[in-house]
Amino acid sequence: MTSTRPTLGIGMVGYAFMGAAHSQAWRSAGRFFDLPMEPAMVALAGRSRERTTEAAQRMGWASVETDWKALVDRDDVDLVDICTPGDTHVEIAVAALEAGKHVLCEKPLANTVAEAEQMVAAAERAAERGVRSMVAFNYRRVPAVALARQLVADGRLGEVRHVRAVYLQDWLVDPEAPLAWRLQKDKAGSGALGDIGAHIVDATQFILGDRLSGVSGLMETFVKERPLPESSHGLSGRGGAERGEVTVDDAAVFIGRFGGGALATYEATRFATGRKNALRIEVNGSLGSLAFDFERMNELEFHDGTEDPATGGFRRVLVTEPQHPYVGAWWPAGHGLGYEHSFSHEVVDLVRAIGEGQDPTPSFADGLQVQRVLAAVEESAGRGSGWVPVEG
Amino acid sequence: MTSTRPTLGIGMVGYAFMGAAHSQAWRSAGRFFDLPMEPAMVALAGRSRERTTEAAQRMGWASVETDWKALVDRDDVDLVDICTPGDTHVEIAVAALEAGKHVLCEKPLANTVAEAEQMVAAAERAAERGVRSMVAFNYRRVPAVALARQLVADGRLGEVRHVRAVYLQDWLVDPEAPLAWRLQKDKAGSGALGDIGAHIVDATQFILGDRLSGVSGLMETFVKERPLPESSHGLSGRGGAERGEVTVDDAAVFIGRFGGGALATYEATRFATGRKNALRIEVNGSLGSLAFDFERMNELEFHDGTEDPATGGFRRVLVTEPQHPYVGAWWPAGHGLGYEHSFSHEVVDLVRAIGEGQDPTPSFADGLQVQRVLAAVEESAGRGSGWVPVEG
Amino acid sequence: MTSTRPTLGIGMVGYAFMGAAHSQAWRSAGRFFDLPMEPAMVALAGRSRERTTEAAQRMGWASVETDWKALVDRDDVDLVDICTPGDTHVEIAVAALEAGKHVLCEKPLANTVAEAEQMVAAAERAAERGVRSMVAFNYRRVPAVALARQLVADGRLGEVRHVRAVYLQDWLVDPEAPLAWRLQKDKAGSGALGDIGAHIVDATQFILGDRLSGVSGLMETFVKERPLPESSHGLSGRGGAERGEVTVDDAAVFIGRFGGGALATYEATRFATGRKNALRIEVNGSLGSLAFDFERMNELEFHDGTEDPATGGFRRVLVTEPQHPYVGAWWPAGHGLGYEHSFSHEVVDLVRAIGEGQDPTPSFADGLQVQRVLAAVEESAGRGSGWVPVEG
Amino acid sequence: MTSTRPTLGIGMVGYAFMGAAHSQAWRSAGRFFDLPMEPAMVALAGRSRERTTEAAQRMGWASVETDWKALVDRDDVDLVDICTPGDTHVEIAVAALEAGKHVLCEKPLANTVAEAEQMVAAAERAAERGVRSMVAFNYRRVPAVALARQLVADGRLGEVRHVRAVYLQDWLVDPEAPLAWRLQKDKAGSGALGDIGAHIVDATQFILGDRLSGVSGLMETFVKERPLPESSHGLSGRGGAERGEVTVDDAAVFIGRFGGGALATYEATRFATGRKNALRIEVNGSLGSLAFDFERMNELEFHDGTEDPATGGFRRVLVTEPQHPYVGAWWPAGHGLGYEHSFSHEVVDLVRAIGEGQDPTPSFADGLQVQRVLAAVEESAGRGSGWVPVEG
Repeated sequence: MTSTRPTLGIGMVGYAFMGAAHSQAWRSAGRFFDLPMEPAMVALAGRSRERTTEAAQRMGWASVETDWKALVDRDDVDLVDICTPGDTHVEIAVAALEAGKHVLCEKPLANTVAEAEQMVAAAERAAERGVRSMVAFNYRRVPAVALARQLVADGRLGEVRHVRAVYLQDWLVDPEAPLAWRLQKDKAGSGALGDIGAHIVDATQFILGDRLSGVSGLMETFVKERPLPESSHGLSGRGGAERGEVTVDDAAVFIGRFGGGALATYEATRFATGRKNALRIEVNGSLGSLAFDFERMNELEFHDGTEDPATGGFRRVLVTEPQHPYVGAWWPAGHGLGYEHSFSHEVVDLVRAIGEGQDPTPSFADGLQVQRVLAAVEESAGRGSGWVPVEG
Repeated sequence: MTSTRPTLGIGMVGYAFMGAAHSQAWRSAGRFFDLPMEPAMVALAGRSRERTTEAAQRMGWASVETDWKALVDRDDVDLVDICTPGDTHVEIAVAALEAGKHVLCEKPLANTVAEAEQMVAAAERAAERGVRSMVAFNYRRVPAVALARQLVADGRLGEVRHVRAVYLQDWLVDPEAPLAWRLQKDKAGSGALGDIGAHIVDATQFILGDRLSGVSGLMETFVKERPLPESSHGLSGRGGAERGEVTVDDAAVFIGRFGGGALATYEATRFATGRKNALRIEVNGSLGSLAFDFERMNELEFHDGTEDPATGGFRRVLVTEPQHPYVGAWWPAGHGLGYEHSFSHEVVDLVRAIGEGQDPTPSFADGLQVQRVLAAVEESAGRGSGWVPVEG
Repeated sequence: MTSTRPTLGIGMVGYAFMGAAHSQAWRSAGRFFDLPMEPAMVALAGRSRERTTEAAQRMGWASVETDWKALVDRDDVDLVDICTPGDTHVEIAVAALEAGKHVLCEKPLANTVAEAEQMVAAAERAAERGVRSMVAFNYRRVPAVALARQLVADGRLGEVRHVRAVYLQDWLVDPEAPLAWRLQKDKAGSGALGDIGAHIVDATQFILGDRLSGVSGLMETFVKERPLPESSHGLSGRGGAERGEVTVDDAAVFIGRFGGGALATYEATRFATGRKNALRIEVNGSLGSLAFDFERMNELEFHDGTEDPATGGFRRVLVTEPQHPYVGAWWPAGHGLGYEHSFSHEVVDLVRAIGEGQDPTPSFADGLQVQRVLAAVEESAGRGSGWVPVEG
Repeated sequence: MTSTRPTLGIGMVGYAFMGAAHSQAWRSAGRFFDLPMEPAMVALAGRSRERTTEAAQRMGWASVETDWKALVDRDDVDLVDICTPGDTHVEIAVAALEAGKHVLCEKPLANTVAEAEQMVAAAERAAERGVRSMVAFNYRRVPAVALARQLVADGRLGEVRHVRAVYLQDWLVDPEAPLAWRLQKDKAGSGALGDIGAHIVDATQFILGDRLSGVSGLMETFVKERPLPESSHGLSGRGGAERGEVTVDDAAVFIGRFGGGALATYEATRFATGRKNALRIEVNGSLGSLAFDFERMNELEFHDGTEDPATGGFRRVLVTEPQHPYVGAWWPAGHGLGYEHSFSHEVVDLVRAIGEGQDPTPSFADGLQVQRVLAAVEESAGRGSGWVPVEG
């Protein structure tokens, strides 16, 4: 049964973890949400024809390219979805935007502030011609996080005083876990800081509607050398006999202050034994408080400080009801969503923005600002944890 | 990119809540799991051409039929997926099986034991000709439930002494919630008992690898009359001015004993204010215990009673790791799944069984046995809560 | 520093687990609460002079008696506190009441309905002469339970539809745990049912302000023989080579209906591996719900069904605030209480009732009614789980 | 019944919140634990004779003094228990030690490093004469915290990489909460940092058996002026019309590094709306992890990283079993303790150390080291959050 909506041709570069997540989003979004255009999964680009073909078949892409430039040049591609490591973002994104293609770019926007600035400049030029761009901070689209943002925006927390955010994983605790690209500075830019720290910086700034004005941090590489990888699957893989140097941080902790005066603590680590994906955010305001843990992603804890103290307490809000952001489009009340749905919501918001001729958020400029926070943390850690203000 | 695997043509009857869930499963299963055949979403059947066409387009079915018999007759349909209310199951399933089509049938298998017996007979005749059938108790395929079953089968719980299972929802607390088909005995067979009680009966029997030998129960209809529905969406909808009688139970509670001697308590209700989809199961054995709550579906609590008491305790197992049933096919460690994934897993197991020439489980006979438990509960409730043994 | 309040002379019979708990209560109550009389720990009675003397010294009793009758006769004893096994309650309580002494009697009130009826008769005769009696269902005095009762009484739950109550322990899972007095029918009356089932029957009836009108139950003794005890300490102890028959139930499950129409499920067991003292109660009403677990005794979960569904959810009320029942007398906000405090509150309420010339609750008549519920469960279990109405 | 043990005469100075807690400890410890000496509650000192007499009577002290010097001089006082604000500690403690009295001193040891150093000097001189001293970091004696320390000491966590500790309260969120002594620098030394931050610094250092080597911090006073108090009760009280300046911090956040290399984040605040007493500590090591929250003080979460990942997870250890530190002396398995019990355990350890002729811990030197950490945080916060090493 064919749709009568116009088609939006999607070309994706990269097909690993993020590629698989984005593919499922492109496949599913229009099945549950009303979209102004019908996303068509036109082409997938990767370096190896064989592996790219296998991936395209598995993930549902209609054709393959072995050069991302060819993908960017295709007339049937209206939007380029960048799912490659951070060191390649600037080149692909700038080329795509200049070719008039909308761009969805995985986070972190780039590996350096300078690269991110180039991308913002390109995005701004493109926006003048109606070409849209978005950085893929998918956690903003977890319904509980979107609800948190809404509660703060509605004033339910009053003046925000405290933010505490951690992103805890443990996949590097084993010193024999191999030296994947995420552990190499030239590919990944930074380690836990850029990979998962970026998410909590973005998510907290999003929830507060405010930005960090300065930070003071510490970074550490607990395991200095690891076996070079022989194969890889997802975030794991197997290591060989040869060893190489880990050139990124295993963990970063920092304190900061928001523009509006809130104090904040942050921690990003891949060494929190037993924590698999504990992106946790707590916010305390003069009128109320919030707590979120991605390990229980369908819940938001909310405390309304204006309640009668005899029956007040943190409420476990099951964010699975039709009233909640994004939720009504899926299943009846009470039927939880998973990790992948955040990507579907991201795609929905992006396609709708394109359809309405609006700039989607988070913009490349938002991605650059996150990059500046990360750079400030690195700078502080590099010179005795002194305070480093965050520009802009 | 076309696949080289043989095609398995799917025809689905019904396109409401379950139809949407099954569609997402048929669309997704082959993207993440290796299947011996490629499911093709050939045709959708429904009574109204307009609404069926709209649904087919939205859910990704290639064509529509307005008579399920026509769908059963199509040469390109190899499997009939029945997502209609229980009163229609027997006719469609028997016809499909006799036409040599594999059948996936939503639960409860039928509205009466007699109907279910007819379906089992048809399934057994069909099985002799290599035609497969399965009843859709999807909660068996939630990874945490599958892990629970595995732990019991591996002897980690020892001799099981206690089962406590509840399925708590609250969508009927409002006395003005309309009289949907799920509240009409002729359509739904029973109320909370058949709709959600069936799930906890099946899931507990599955986890234990044992069956209830008898029960004693109470049933209740708290709100006797409701407005007749004007429109419907998911489980909710809006009521009009006219009222009708609620002919099914709002809640059922029962106690029972398993063949192996375990004592059990059950409760199914749509009147548990604040509980959205709390399918909770606890099992205590001589060596260990389990606890599961679907509101936290990515977790299984496990207590190993053989541990040193100084550090023993219920472990919150995050069932999001590659070691866990079904999970490895999806995302890296720590990225939770949602409600819909249980249907994808169901479809995976079914297609694999067909490919391997095996009878899948749960079979129609398993569905009939659940029906017999429900019938025993009704019989007990109808005559002073006396003990009613469950046949075979 | 001596007090100017009149003295209330306390004589206690028995000095095991309950005796230690009551002693701590008598010692502490007046230190934190304003009492109309000053409890004086006058005398402790036990059969062995040596062990009673040792206990009196440890627990702070001024003198000992080796015959409870001598204790009852003492002029300086105004109140007799009965902490012995159930088979001795009737004789001691009736004698004390006839001697004009107030009585606090541990639960269950007696081992049989007939004995309990005798005690009620004696209590009623005594009450006419201003002599007070109380049965020691201490869980009523856990602040979270008292708050639960208050919320139901204030109408915050609306019409109550569901009660589910379990009391789960695991100290008998080991088949070599010795045959303590609590496992002998002639001493204890019944097993899990009378020991811990009694608590959840009383606590749920207290919270609802309603009574069970009938029940249907199952009981089981999983381990039929155990080693006879050589020594004992608390609930544990060591077993010898000789074995004896377990003459009480290891577990009991039952369903019931309250006078007001609520459906209820109950389970009492000492075989729930990993559960130490999980007295859990959930109540669902038309306007709200409650959940309590004694393993987290300083918390009450409350769901207000009248809230905006976008931010509604079960609230974790920390029952540690000055607004909460009993709490203000202890520590500043946020400093949790323990098990023993329920006994202090019990003593406070008793002494205040005596001071005000009121009959305290729960009365012996309340204790008798609980006994009748337990007897109905036993009767039902004894004849095929049929429905047994509960008198009066 | 009198004891045959030697008496240890206790004299206490101060009778507010801490005085009440210590009194309950002195009254209860010997009832449950075997002590080498019998604590006798000899005398209470306070400035107002009337109020001190009232307190002594309520709390069970045999006599009163209106000058702490008189109390220190009494022959029947063997141990001085200091429960006054921090500005008075140095004078009382030094005098008592010089008079040959053992000293238990509430935390923080003093309001300045210099004062604490004086006290350490006095304690060291006294120790040479067999006079003992201890600073009252009571949270070390919460059983779950003691178990945490034991697990780390036993190597169950391996090499510790991460510590995150917060102490969250909310009693100052209301800007009209009065300016109590805890908000005045001259009385309290510092605000949240010294009052509750001190506890998490001590508790984490205790659990790790390691010390912070440096810190970088931020401090904030959110509400600059408050009404002067008219009356006070516990931590609350009522404010009048006149206002005064808040001269201490409302909140402090800091990052740090332990001697052994672990990264740490800390936060102490009285502005975390909805958190009543959330002293939370998490520790991640190469082999395992721990999590504790005082709001659930009878639980310790422990993750054993060496477990099979299929069934691994954070275990909720109910620290209520006879195997656990301190617990066996109280009630049978499963009967939780409260806040006050930590003080009883403190007193037990102190009296035992005195009886055995050992120096108890935490020593005044331990208290001084905590003071140095707090001073380093203040120094860092005062000069741009730069790194400040903590002296040995």
